[in-house]
Amino acid sequence: MTNTDTFLSSAGRQMQESAIRKMGTVLASGRDVISFAPGYPAPEMFPWDDFAAIAAELLGSRDGSVLQYGPTRGYRPLLDAIAGIMRRRGVDTAPDRLLVTTGSQQGLDLVARVLIDPGDVILVELPTYVGAITAFRNVQARLVGVPQEADGIDLGALDDTCERLRRDGRRIKFLYVVPNFQNPTGLLIGLPKRQRLLEWAERRDVLIVEDDPYRELYFEDSASEHDVRPIKADDANERVVYLSSFSKTLAPGYRVAWIAAPGSLASRFEMAKQAEDLLTGSLDQRVIYEACRRGVLDRQIPVLRKHYAHKRDVMEAALRRELGESISWPTPKGGFFLWVTLPDGTDASRMIARAIEHGVIYVTGEAFYVDGSGQNTLRLSFSAPTPERIDAGVARLASTLRDERAARATAAAAAAPEVP
Amino acid sequence: MTNTDTFLSSAGRQMQESAIRKMGTVLASGRDVISFAPGYPAPEMFPWDDFAAIAAELLGSRDGSVLQYGPTRGYRPLLDAIAGIMRRRGVDTAPDRLLVTTGSQQGLDLVARVLIDPGDVILVELPTYVGAITAFRNVQARLVGVPQEADGIDLGALDDTCERLRRDGRRIKFLYVVPNFQNPTGLLIGLPKRQRLLEWAERRDVLIVEDDPYRELYFEDSASEHDVRPIKADDANERVVYLSSFSKTLAPGYRVAWIAAPGSLASRFEMAKQAEDLLTGSLDQRVIYEACRRGVLDRQIPVLRKHYAHKRDVMEAALRRELGESISWPTPKGGFFLWVTLPDGTDASRMIARAIEHGVIYVTGEAFYVDGSGQNTLRLSFSAPTPERIDAGVARLASTLRDERAARATAAAAAAPEVP
Repeated sequence: MTNTDTFLSSAGRQMQESAIRKMGTVLASGRDVISFAPGYPAPEMFPWDDFAAIAAELLGSRDGSVLQYGPTRGYRPLLDAIAGIMRRRGVDTAPDRLLVTTGSQQGLDLVARVLIDPGDVILVELPTYVGAITAFRNVQARLVGVPQEADGIDLGALDDTCERLRRDGRRIKFLYVVPNFQNPTGLLIGLPKRQRLLEWAERRDVLIVEDDPYRELYFEDSASEHDVRPIKADDANERVVYLSSFSKTLAPGYRVAWIAAPGSLASRFEMAKQAEDLLTGSLDQRVIYEACRRGVLDRQIPVLRKHYAHKRDVMEAALRRELGESISWPTPKGGFFLWVTLPDGTDASRMIARAIEHGVIYVTGEAFYVDGSGQNTLRLSFSAPTPERIDAGVARLASTLRDERAARATAAAAAAPEVP
Repeated sequence: MTNTDTFLSSAGRQMQESAIRKMGTVLASGRDVISFAPGYPAPEMFPWDDFAAIAAELLGSRDGSVLQYGPTRGYRPLLDAIAGIMRRRGVDTAPDRLLVTTGSQQGLDLVARVLIDPGDVILVELPTYVGAITAFRNVQARLVGVPQEADGIDLGALDDTCERLRRDGRRIKFLYVVPNFQNPTGLLIGLPKRQRLLEWAERRDVLIVEDDPYRELYFEDSASEHDVRPIKADDANERVVYLSSFSKTLAPGYRVAWIAAPGSLASRFEMAKQAEDLLTGSLDQRVIYEACRRGVLDRQIPVLRKHYAHKRDVMEAALRRELGESISWPTPKGGFFLWVTLPDGTDASRMIARAIEHGVIYVTGEAFYVDGSGQNTLRLSFSAPTPERIDAGVARLASTLRDERAARATAAAAAAPEVP
């Protein structure tokens, strides 16, 4: 048999499976497992009837371009619609600065390929989105983490890190941030800090990659339109590459997202995409465009805000009830995720096998840390399960933790010296 | 304004727009241009009613997984259906060796990233598919061309090239071939040659990447099932990576294709895809699966063979009528393309502006040559235009050529020394 290992590229040899996607394998096994793992939107909220009506009309039209190859940049009316969405977010852009991508994961990958040489430093939040870690590592970036405060990334630590890396002769390409309801922590970068981040990037001559999939999903009791203003909105000097998506507001199965980039980079991203998949699905783009044009998206968003805020409430209440003081978390003001810190010494990775036994899964916090820390943290997604399943899942998580502590106590007792 | 050029990776700096996609820009300009440029399938042949019925049923089901994230490897029933298709092609494979890709372009890109380090040699046919050239160049491969004979790649030249490159200390990763109705020449590699290619790869310890999008579209007057047997069918030692697609048989707008790989590589391709776009569109995969399950694909194929054979006939007749002896081409036995050699000294790239003036476009042959040759060649796609448009387009091409020759004669006369 051919030994294909000898043919691998150095990138190919180093590729790793994402921790989130691994959990997908557990789910696919068919056991009764309540999943707090992948950040799936709630499928019962998809606008099924609208999608069915749109598909029937598009396919009924027999307009060849609906199912044909098309321009790499994207379906032009959709690009115009995205420019409108960006304007409402405070960003003045145009189709020549936009690119439709096959999900935001492709956006991250294009950013990685066009900007990163092996060994280049990318600054990221500690913890940060695991899909970005994978995309950047696949082009052999060196990822350096910066701690977060309650209002997002620590600017002092950020500048010190930059200073130290430059002293060591390292090349820093960009800072990657998820300012709104970050994946995994759910944190929001405060408005004044956003402004200062931009000034910092300008002063240090570093690009900012702003990943913004959750911004529409703020919870009205604790955040507003005002709080989610993109960094890109104040990017007068074109230093910010902005990514967003329809996956969390319409449906992820369509794989339609976008990049808003400085003009000089947009055409590079387009060329990279051309070689990567030629174009994003034609019918998918049409459906998403029609959902924008017909007001489906605008109708969805307020409904989704309420839906996910309620699930957040249910999960917080269940955690308080079942786990009381033994764990802590920042209250999510939007998005899909709740970030749990376990008691010191509890290792979320070691505990995962026990959790699966109890019929509940989460993503171990460690997967989001580029510096190997975070052992006593984990991410819970409250977006997909029903309120009843959230309650049941948290109860399972609580018994997992109780068993884990009992097992540790037993192990500690066994290891203790015998007293006569 | 930020100078983003200083942030580009070396791959990012070298990326180029594909020659075929550039022609797309001309088309989008809205002029009356008859396009023989991109290899678009005929949209009037898409099974519109079947697609509409399938979409209505899938979206009517409100089954969440239809529009949800899903496994990177692909929708499991579709993987099983693809394994069945592969068996009918003579290839015994299984879902653990298959990966659904977002079009075959993604397949080429995954192959490039997992296998190629900068400077690695990839052997290709002269000429070869431009989308593969772009994908391989984007990871900084060194592409070396091998001439073709009437029955495909020249084995003597192939081995000499390999020998010479090895003597120069170059690392050869794989040979890329399109054995069935090659893009751009329409050539078919003969069966005995396929067997000898595999033996050569074994002896020289090189992988083969076999790209096979057109195999179902053989023309029954000149080829049969027997002639299109994949090299992969005899790949007992797992040395062949095989790519195919539903784009030419169902519709390209769905972006569903696949890789059949040695088991050890399939999981690497999956990891690369995970970071590249997470998954191929969920609904797209379901629609394609249903089209397989309900027999839509099986009904389409014989109809498409007749349809494209007829268009090939129309184009050949028009070329003979309009251009007689001044050009030559090998008769395509399948696929979408007819490969024209112009009279010596005629430069298809220089002529393209004149062709656009005359309202017809093609792809310049040069784009398919990795060694800079092929100036007097061009690729005509007969797949998308109607027979009437093929006739009109060939007439326009003939007047383009006549004008070009007249202009050259005038220029030559002007350059000639004055005779008293």
